[in-house]
Amino acid sequence: MALIVHKYGGTSMGSTERIRNVAKRVAKWVRAGHQMVVVPSAMSGETNRLLGLAKEVSPARTDAAVQRELDMLASTGEQVSVGLLALALQAEGLPAVSYAGWQVPIHTNDAYTKARIESIEDARVRKDLAQGKVVIITGFQGVDGQGNITTLGRGGSDTSAVAVAAALKAAECLIYTDVDGVYTTDPRVVPEARRLSTVSFEEMLEMASMGSKVLQIRSVEFAGKYQVPLRVLSSFTDWDIPIEEEARSGTLITFEEDEKMEQAVVSGIAFNRDEAKISILGVPDRPGIAYQILGAVAEANIEVDVIIQNVSHDGRTDFSFTVHRSEYARTIDVLKTSVLPSLGTDRVEGDTRICKVSIVGIGMRSHVGIASKMFRALSEEGINIQMISTSEIKTSVVIDEKYMELAVRALHRAFDLDQPAG
Amino acid sequence: MALIVHKYGGTSMGSTERIRNVAKRVAKWVRAGHQMVVVPSAMSGETNRLLGLAKEVSPARTDAAVQRELDMLASTGEQVSVGLLALALQAEGLPAVSYAGWQVPIHTNDAYTKARIESIEDARVRKDLAQGKVVIITGFQGVDGQGNITTLGRGGSDTSAVAVAAALKAAECLIYTDVDGVYTTDPRVVPEARRLSTVSFEEMLEMASMGSKVLQIRSVEFAGKYQVPLRVLSSFTDWDIPIEEEARSGTLITFEEDEKMEQAVVSGIAFNRDEAKISILGVPDRPGIAYQILGAVAEANIEVDVIIQNVSHDGRTDFSFTVHRSEYARTIDVLKTSVLPSLGTDRVEGDTRICKVSIVGIGMRSHVGIASKMFRALSEEGINIQMISTSEIKTSVVIDEKYMELAVRALHRAFDLDQPAG
Repeated sequence: MALIVHKYGGTSMGSTERIRNVAKRVAKWVRAGHQMVVVPSAMSGETNRLLGLAKEVSPARTDAAVQRELDMLASTGEQVSVGLLALALQAEGLPAVSYAGWQVPIHTNDAYTKARIESIEDARVRKDLAQGKVVIITGFQGVDGQGNITTLGRGGSDTSAVAVAAALKAAECLIYTDVDGVYTTDPRVVPEARRLSTVSFEEMLEMASMGSKVLQIRSVEFAGKYQVPLRVLSSFTDWDIPIEEEARSGTLITFEEDEKMEQAVVSGIAFNRDEAKISILGVPDRPGIAYQILGAVAEANIEVDVIIQNVSHDGRTDFSFTVHRSEYARTIDVLKTSVLPSLGTDRVEGDTRICKVSIVGIGMRSHVGIASKMFRALSEEGINIQMISTSEIKTSVVIDEKYMELAVRALHRAFDLDQPAG
Repeated sequence: MALIVHKYGGTSMGSTERIRNVAKRVAKWVRAGHQMVVVPSAMSGETNRLLGLAKEVSPARTDAAVQRELDMLASTGEQVSVGLLALALQAEGLPAVSYAGWQVPIHTNDAYTKARIESIEDARVRKDLAQGKVVIITGFQGVDGQGNITTLGRGGSDTSAVAVAAALKAAECLIYTDVDGVYTTDPRVVPEARRLSTVSFEEMLEMASMGSKVLQIRSVEFAGKYQVPLRVLSSFTDWDIPIEEEARSGTLITFEEDEKMEQAVVSGIAFNRDEAKISILGVPDRPGIAYQILGAVAEANIEVDVIIQNVSHDGRTDFSFTVHRSEYARTIDVLKTSVLPSLGTDRVEGDTRICKVSIVGIGMRSHVGIASKMFRALSEEGINIQMISTSEIKTSVVIDEKYMELAVRALHRAFDLDQPAG
């Protein structure tokens, strides 16, 4: 018997029939002797419907007073879900009780529409669990210090589930979603891509930020911080598959180095073609230059991903970075207006037809030659590397976007990712 | 400048366009210098949609745990309304803030789905009003002593509005609805029916309970208890009609005897054909008989309206009462099974084809001969009276349902209700 947290996404909660199936699945876990806490998302489409109504009454969406009301509105989607799931569990003959974020309470800061969880009180939930109840808690929301409803932003229900699991010191947090786990790379690009039975949370962080949209990245950070064992698994299996099989399915995100040692050096290949690269050439090599350039970009609310500055020659260097492709033109604009004049150069160039491909693996820490193996594999395919950036457990290259699939397949093969882990 | 509470029903909140019109109307009152609190219902159809979903996941609707979840679910309808209305007011350029019942808080008991308001804290609302904000509060709901969401039952938003007005000592509570006031009787039956510019709250109580479905009866009781001036008026006028005209429209429900003295003795004719009458004949006239009969009926959860017991002859009397027509067969059953055997009689009879017609008027207290004038008007139409029941401000008769319209018209004429009040 263990305390387990389940999280179900909007698709799983998308109709009353599906909600009844979620209830049956949870009931199976209860009958196997577990204490259960369930965190469901809003029914699919509901949050969009609510925010659509908001747009119809109020085109502007700027200040805190407006955002407070958007949270008041959007938070009802999850409240409907928890009420319905509690009713469905009761119909299964199980005692169940639902709570909105403010009832737990889940304390957040007051950054409406993108609040951060500060703490979770566990007394009320523990009391219910001790009485044998299934506890159902709204995802995506909390309450600030003044008693206002807040939401955590899109995908926040993953974070809610992990935070609840951390607060309750749950044995495991299971995220039921529309994929059956984390893959070595996107199976649409590499048919041989393999589901990882485990992945380290650091790898998961690198994968998530690169576009493997399996889990909200904040939920992974949270899981890492509080060492919550996290499993991503499919919600499309029949609810009545044997619990032993279900409990081993999907991908477990772990925090234990030992397990990882026996695994492959590279766990997965991430890629992303949403970026554009920008270079400023002939930048004077003096203190404060990076801030001078990127400060202006940040002020324009443009997010920067890769940043590269190489050694200088003759007191001049080249400064490169990538931004989201949709921000390319605006970034060039900002640079020309606010940055270049004071730099003594007008040489800015860029390219929107690029992509970023990364190898990710916690084993890279303790193995040499991984990056060069990557570069060799790319060169054997005749792929020119435009930028390189590395971290402890990731090596990324920027290449022409037309080679993306070719590069991903070559790297997947080069690192034996289509073979079961040794 | 005064503190005013507006209440808008589900039809007024039925679309985002209508919500924008409500915002414009409220803005007009703000710009006239009033402090405004607004209590909206859920968008029309929303509560039914939510409870329909509940039915799909859980056919049973009995115990408190189930009802708690129904309240969790149903309360979201009003939360959506307050969020949208706050956004619409902000779009009008007014500072506005919305609160769910638990945020005010509106304290209730824990009778889920039919909770009663126990107290309302006014500090938070007063602070907002002092800062010039429009405060929007969910109707229909509150929070119990354990922090669970409760709802007040269908139509509870009227009660919420009046209770909020009482707590804030508002100058007036305006209930915007789909009728333009309280009439001397139903205009569909008597085309000459006239809108009353004022009506006493006792009269309103008698009218409401008789099927003039203008206001939820509990809201009128609340208004009476706390002496909240209450106005029922139409939400179908253009939002930009002059505020002086709007403020005088509809029907004001008053608590001041003086005003009433100049008015007609009878204010209105109420009627109802939802009832059935049941008589037990030859009941022994001994203490405890009424309880013996009605106790069993109440235990079967059957509501009783009129109750009549006349003087006895030879130690035996006849005992009559009315129930809702849909409960007729079940009531007869209960009587035959649990009551008659111990009464020493098997003579029970009844009739479902009856109606109740009442004259209501606070002036009846101080005028004699009103009832006999009623009976004469009916006899002149050849209408036989089957039962009579009287209270201080109401006289009701039970007659054959086929005479209902005839009786209502005759009484409306007899008491000069088609003439403007003197």
